[in-house]
Amino acid sequence: MFGGIEAGGTKFVCGIGTGPEDIQTAQFPTSSPDITLRSVLDFFKAAGSQVQAIGIGSFGPIDLHRASPGYGRITSTPKPGWANFDLVGAVRKELHLPVAFDTDGNAALLGEVRWGAAQGLSDAVYITVGTGIGGGALVHGQLVHGLVHPEIGHLRIPHDWTRDPFPGVCPYHGDCLEGLASGPAMQARWGVPAGTLPPGHPGWELEAQYLALGLVNLAVTLSTGRILLGGGVMQQPHLFEMIRKEFARLLNKYVQHDEVIDHLGRFIQAPALGGRAGVLGSLVLAEQAVSAEAHEWAGERA
Amino acid sequence: MFGGIEAGGTKFVCGIGTGPEDIQTAQFPTSSPDITLRSVLDFFKAAGSQVQAIGIGSFGPIDLHRASPGYGRITSTPKPGWANFDLVGAVRKELHLPVAFDTDGNAALLGEVRWGAAQGLSDAVYITVGTGIGGGALVHGQLVHGLVHPEIGHLRIPHDWTRDPFPGVCPYHGDCLEGLASGPAMQARWGVPAGTLPPGHPGWELEAQYLALGLVNLAVTLSTGRILLGGGVMQQPHLFEMIRKEFARLLNKYVQHDEVIDHLGRFIQAPALGGRAGVLGSLVLAEQAVSAEAHEWAGERA
Repeated sequence: MFGGIEAGGTKFVCGIGTGPEDIQTAQFPTSSPDITLRSVLDFFKAAGSQVQAIGIGSFGPIDLHRASPGYGRITSTPKPGWANFDLVGAVRKELHLPVAFDTDGNAALLGEVRWGAAQGLSDAVYITVGTGIGGGALVHGQLVHGLVHPEIGHLRIPHDWTRDPFPGVCPYHGDCLEGLASGPAMQARWGVPAGTLPPGHPGWELEAQYLALGLVNLAVTLSTGRILLGGGVMQQPHLFEMIRKEFARLLNKYVQHDEVIDHLGRFIQAPALGGRAGVLGSLVLAEQAVSAEAHEWAGERA
Repeated sequence: MFGGIEAGGTKFVCGIGTGPEDIQTAQFPTSSPDITLRSVLDFFKAAGSQVQAIGIGSFGPIDLHRASPGYGRITSTPKPGWANFDLVGAVRKELHLPVAFDTDGNAALLGEVRWGAAQGLSDAVYITVGTGIGGGALVHGQLVHGLVHPEIGHLRIPHDWTRDPFPGVCPYHGDCLEGLASGPAMQARWGVPAGTLPPGHPGWELEAQYLALGLVNLAVTLSTGRILLGGGVMQQPHLFEMIRKEFARLLNKYVQHDEVIDHLGRFIQAPALGGRAGVLGSLVLAEQAVSAEAHEWAGERA
């Protein structure tokens, strides 16, 4: 059995199991690190010695470079008490288990690649459009990390000033993708929560335009094989077809591959695991940690 | 010894050697496939049995998926005679050697990673800004391929309509990055070749703005460790500092890593191998082909 923690900005989802069939989950609100971690650690302690390793998919930005002195920490979040919090350290210290650590977006993508809507693919992207816009990317079967980790929400895209004089809500960039197309951006622009706008509202057309521009940028940079769109704003089935249509119009058949020309219905789709993608992907991270640490321990003994 | 071919839209650069110290090169204009390939093949035949394998870094788009029936071909180029031309097949048929195939951008990046300005990095990007804008990307030490291969030049970026009413020159997308910032875009906008604009000309400020927007998109998608900018338009030393300044302003310290905050002088720089990056990187492709094909042959014999 493995343990998974989806560490989110509003809640921590914890799970124990081997996959979607047998996972047992519990969730705890994200309050102070002390209070939240207490609940999380007690949940895993109650499971006793069944759990071999813990995987954590965390909100960020985080430090996930093992050679870094800050490895395992949430870094510059504005969330009170969590900036610079050593999440991996706190879990490892009490549970004495191997711990794997990645972003929430990367964890959700791993879950979808193992059991969901990107099953078996070596190149895919997961994007969540909600209170922010974030995501994860897989290239040649490996999660993209680079210097830090991807921050897909902060892509710069053409801002349609004529139709949309709204300046954007990102405190860093104003009108980046997150600034223009996140849930709070829609709410600030239209004065009501995104979910209450009716399907024919012009806000959806604008939303589809901005998201499609972001998707085109991922398609030409990563030449990715599939894009999964989750999160609160995407709980509108009509929005998917609008995004696909705009994506096709913008890309204009420049990328010559069946997947992005004839199979847009699967190329751009919803995640299959819903709210469980993150915690299930964290189990996969844990599984990977077991083999990685076995490797390291063998090295230390030698 | 390995053989390298940088197959470009205006010339083919061929080389034989093991690296920058001993490479012997020759170049041939890109005319018809028959005429150009004749010169290329004769160059390698004259070298006799010294060459163990050939690497090709080609202009594109190309089909580089080995399982595809079109593997080894240049696909949809408007260049007369070259559309659908089986470049790998033509080389393999006469030289009877293992052949590796990738994009010109990926090959140049490999050269820079082995011997140049991105030495030893596992995550880097190479961009050429000239008659078009293209490039290659390395993630976790592997060249990015995905469905087809990256087409970095076709990133969508904010078009500064107020300062720049020019509609862009890309026949597919109008004002994508290549449409706004390639050499032909500068020439069409200002009426003179980019290289003749003096350093204080407003065209350079606009160019730095557009390129920096593209670089920000690569930084937030790949979280890449270094960006090398080559090609004709980049033969202006003053342009680099303008791009770095605009990149820093746009990113606004959102990516918390020394490399993109304190070390922009090396994060954004010129390639070190100049015009030889492509052919040198093709030698690396050839070297990789030898081990890959040895593997395959072992499999076939078994």
